[in-house]
Amino acid sequence: MSQRSEIWLDGLPTVALPLPDRGFDFGDGVFETILVHQGVPLFVDLHLERLSLGLKALAIPNCTALARHQLDTVVSTMQGRWAVLRLSVSRGHGHRGYTPPDNAVPRILITVSQLDRDCGQMASAAMLCFAKIRLATQPFLAGIKHLNRLEQVIASAQAKAERVDEAVVLDQSGHLVSVVAGNLFLVYQGKLLTPKLDNCGILGTRRRLVIERWAPALGLTVNEAILTVADLQAAEEVFYSNSLQAVRPIARIGQHSWNAHGVCEAIFQCYQADLV
Amino acid sequence: MSQRSEIWLDGLPTVALPLPDRGFDFGDGVFETILVHQGVPLFVDLHLERLSLGLKALAIPNCTALARHQLDTVVSTMQGRWAVLRLSVSRGHGHRGYTPPDNAVPRILITVSQLDRDCGQMASAAMLCFAKIRLATQPFLAGIKHLNRLEQVIASAQAKAERVDEAVVLDQSGHLVSVVAGNLFLVYQGKLLTPKLDNCGILGTRRRLVIERWAPALGLTVNEAILTVADLQAAEEVFYSNSLQAVRPIARIGQHSWNAHGVCEAIFQCYQADLV
Repeated sequence: MSQRSEIWLDGLPTVALPLPDRGFDFGDGVFETILVHQGVPLFVDLHLERLSLGLKALAIPNCTALARHQLDTVVSTMQGRWAVLRLSVSRGHGHRGYTPPDNAVPRILITVSQLDRDCGQMASAAMLCFAKIRLATQPFLAGIKHLNRLEQVIASAQAKAERVDEAVVLDQSGHLVSVVAGNLFLVYQGKLLTPKLDNCGILGTRRRLVIERWAPALGLTVNEAILTVADLQAAEEVFYSNSLQAVRPIARIGQHSWNAHGVCEAIFQCYQADLV
Repeated sequence: MSQRSEIWLDGLPTVALPLPDRGFDFGDGVFETILVHQGVPLFVDLHLERLSLGLKALAIPNCTALARHQLDTVVSTMQGRWAVLRLSVSRGHGHRGYTPPDNAVPRILITVSQLDRDCGQMASAAMLCFAKIRLATQPFLAGIKHLNRLEQVIASAQAKAERVDEAVVLDQSGHLVSVVAGNLFLVYQGKLLTPKLDNCGILGTRRRLVIERWAPALGLTVNEAILTVADLQAAEEVFYSNSLQAVRPIARIGQHSWNAHGVCEAIFQCYQADLV
């Protein structure tokens, strides 16, 4: 994966962020990770819908239409088959202290990275560990993709240190939440299960597509439930979803392994059909 | 309070932060708010000790000595009687994604703001509300002053909307944690009580000074305990501590009010003695 990136701030190419910025000071903002295929940002309406919900939760002025416009401008300059675009919105400039300013002017930051990997092909089955850090219970922020991501940074560092691809994260009660950068699905007795995300975790765009579109297209229902590590171990197949990989089969989590990946493969084919 | 500010990055005056930066992307860093009195940063060793603990918790290279050097340089240029200095350390540049880079080079950002208020005089008794948002349980991050501060932003916005000075924040179990920007103390039967901060909250430098120095100088002991709203209502006196105000008496929290501020005043006098 290439690491060259280009950055746009409020519609203009930049290399730096004006200071002070509340995104840096407090993580006061939200972001989206959007896959771009041959110049087309994928499922952009779902991303912008979540962005809008996040801005509303944080009482940041809704600049979704402007973000869409800037995103289209950036995408029009892009080359290459696959790229990933990070769209961040911070509350922007603010005075000293936590209190948000009355008339915040959000800043829209778009970072483009070219991808070498062919995202149209399913990634190989992943090896995972269990994250030592458990996600904090915070119903107020659950679901949205805000800029406070230290838990994910810490869990990712562990996965890297353990030389695995990803990590399963649990909540404070030990229930399953997700993987660090994606949502988790279990296949059990011909049905799909995925953790409820009322207290923590991010409502992924691909999670939503699995639930509302791809699984139903295969005649499968998805239940959102409170799930345990025992449920995971009882599952016939497990996989995760995210914007870059759509769905990726899981070969191993800690000491437990799975050989079956048929449901994940079938869902990936639904995704491939959407790419055409 | 004046809002003019000057910003220094890695020892040089700046107006912008090079991008990408993991402080902005994920809140991947820590900060300190340091009061400066006549060109002397107050209790700077306590601030740098907490900064160092935070960097260690996040596995960010320890740049405390360099931060101290840059802080001294910035302070040497400062004028005015009172100023506040925000010292932020981010993990710096990073590639796309949550995983920290192997060879992170932390960025040190120092923002200076002049203060109009005379911080050598005790602030008037404060009016508080109870924050609707409860702090998330996260033992791994409890105590340190990291850049993930959305909960504080949300609670501060509520306090502003309710036209009060501050807000008391509770944890997920409804126990007392602190105020948004400070630590909480209760006077009960001649002793001081302050919430334990094992699961959330920040270990304030002035909290430490009250516990280790100022209360003992008055012959008072401070117990760290699990405290409830009922404990608060039973208290004879309540106050909070932070870097800017040292200690500030509380006149009212929600429907409950206090007229007694004697212990807070006595502690403030200990603080004044330290300023000379």
